[in-house]
Amino acid sequence: MATLPAAIPEFLQRHRSGLEAALRGEVGVEPGGITAAARYVLGWEDENGCESEATGKRLRPLLCLFTAELLGGDAGPAMPGAVAIELIHNFSLVHDDLQDRDMVRHGRPAAWALHGEAQAINLGDFLYARAIRAITRAGGPADRRMAALSALLDATGRMIEGQWQDIGFESRATVTADEYLAMVAAKTGALLGASLALGAIMAGAPPVYAPALARWGEHAGIAFQLRDDHLGAWGDPGETGKPTGGDIVRRKKSLPIVLGLQDPRAAATIREVYARHTIDGADVAAVLSALEEAGCRHSCEEMAARHSAGADALLADLPLAAESRARLTEVAAYLVGRQT
Amino acid sequence: MATLPAAIPEFLQRHRSGLEAALRGEVGVEPGGITAAARYVLGWEDENGCESEATGKRLRPLLCLFTAELLGGDAGPAMPGAVAIELIHNFSLVHDDLQDRDMVRHGRPAAWALHGEAQAINLGDFLYARAIRAITRAGGPADRRMAALSALLDATGRMIEGQWQDIGFESRATVTADEYLAMVAAKTGALLGASLALGAIMAGAPPVYAPALARWGEHAGIAFQLRDDHLGAWGDPGETGKPTGGDIVRRKKSLPIVLGLQDPRAAATIREVYARHTIDGADVAAVLSALEEAGCRHSCEEMAARHSAGADALLADLPLAAESRARLTEVAAYLVGRQT
Repeated sequence: MATLPAAIPEFLQRHRSGLEAALRGEVGVEPGGITAAARYVLGWEDENGCESEATGKRLRPLLCLFTAELLGGDAGPAMPGAVAIELIHNFSLVHDDLQDRDMVRHGRPAAWALHGEAQAINLGDFLYARAIRAITRAGGPADRRMAALSALLDATGRMIEGQWQDIGFESRATVTADEYLAMVAAKTGALLGASLALGAIMAGAPPVYAPALARWGEHAGIAFQLRDDHLGAWGDPGETGKPTGGDIVRRKKSLPIVLGLQDPRAAATIREVYARHTIDGADVAAVLSALEEAGCRHSCEEMAARHSAGADALLADLPLAAESRARLTEVAAYLVGRQT
Repeated sequence: MATLPAAIPEFLQRHRSGLEAALRGEVGVEPGGITAAARYVLGWEDENGCESEATGKRLRPLLCLFTAELLGGDAGPAMPGAVAIELIHNFSLVHDDLQDRDMVRHGRPAAWALHGEAQAINLGDFLYARAIRAITRAGGPADRRMAALSALLDATGRMIEGQWQDIGFESRATVTADEYLAMVAAKTGALLGASLALGAIMAGAPPVYAPALARWGEHAGIAFQLRDDHLGAWGDPGETGKPTGGDIVRRKKSLPIVLGLQDPRAAATIREVYARHTIDGADVAAVLSALEEAGCRHSCEEMAARHSAGADALLADLPLAAESRARLTEVAAYLVGRQT
């Protein structure tokens, strides 16, 4: 999934320390072995087992807890769901980094770079098991927890299917924009949506909330990914900390490229550049200008705005207190990088 | 996990067709994509999507259903548990084959050989998600299903930890027999034990059964693996269909080798042979004779017998009807390859 801006909204941070404690409890404290490798992935230890602070932002579990508090007055019952969501997310990062041969995660060697391919597969599988176990071991009504697990596993299945499609796209000559958006909805949107849905379910909110919030999260997730795709092409290196056209240098099939491949002239430029042994600054500039001329930059912005508006519309239909609505709007704004 | 003898006990087969239908229902029928790849893994389709019959023996789910019928009079309530167990087993096979670079599974190309490494990771992850979802979507009391999931995820976590240990052993000079047995208990025994435990839990059997049957299955699983280790060294090719000393040719650290590495003379022979570029018949004979001289063959047989007896003793303590006891004894005999 795409990189988030540095700071997440302050009001999401309230349960951060409680979340870390619950995550640590589920992962376990046994010295060495796979649990130590899991603590490295979660960011609490370095590769020598010394204490470290290299955690992710925990956006998804904090959204889960926030939603539970919003709708049920108490984040507590959703804690096992938050733990599960974060561990599922981390399992997917461990496997994704291996699949994509990405060497770095949170500024440190990716798990597969440290433990090798075979053990990175095991490590992801292990985090996956701990994720589900977190909910099976929790207290509270079994039917609520079962409904939460059902929603979580649906989303996990979709996330994996999205990753399958994404990898499949790499070897295809063209991909339609609809196919690309469906892939993003599955790969990025489903788990983000489930984060809010699990909060609603575990807090015992009326049944209208979970599916609506899942769809809201999905739209926000798509808008978020499309913004990232936009930044990967036209982002300002001073702002993103990444080189201009980074996605082009890495030959990624992000949305601008997917759109460009449907325009004969832009497609010719992209194919020529992507076939080169190394892609330099002039190549990037050529692709960006071909995309701009073909209207792909505009289309990309328009699609992101459409999904952002789709999220807002879903929110408008939900019975929510004014303050709650404002905060969810703030989360959406954060995700799509709007100034608030 | 080790290869099972061709035919599993007839009385286990009763629910075979019901099981296949339930498995198909959970995996899904969408054409192409990851679900088609999943149907290939389950053995119902070939690589072109044409019907095929290349399924595994379904030992674990059939044991789950058999246990439920034994203790609750009806296999039905355990069907989602049986589906989950088989899908977890298949996810582990897909990832194991990739990790071990095994090209063939059930006489056909392994999933990673067909779809590549990255997609094989996704495919295993997907089967894993469908496994858990099978139980979350089932009917019946939520607390029973939650207890079943809890037992399943404990076992899955242990199985993965066992696989982690097994791969770790490859790069270690020596491994103690206790470490090896603990690894086998986790990697092979835990899921086999959970197969019976889930049957007991989902049938609503009194709480004494699930943990006892889990331990029974674990002992039987260890005995089974040790027998396989024995066959991998001294097995008759006419009976096993594999070359004599197959595990030695593949440089595996099976129990006989683990034991041999603790005897200085045998260790020297093993190290010399395992360091060669290719291992031929004379090398295998040299290792086998060194192992025999060091008493490793005898120790291996003794350990297998001890775990087989351990399983019998656990069974003797359980309140079971005479016929039920006889059938479980028959299953154990099948697993450890005793003539019945």
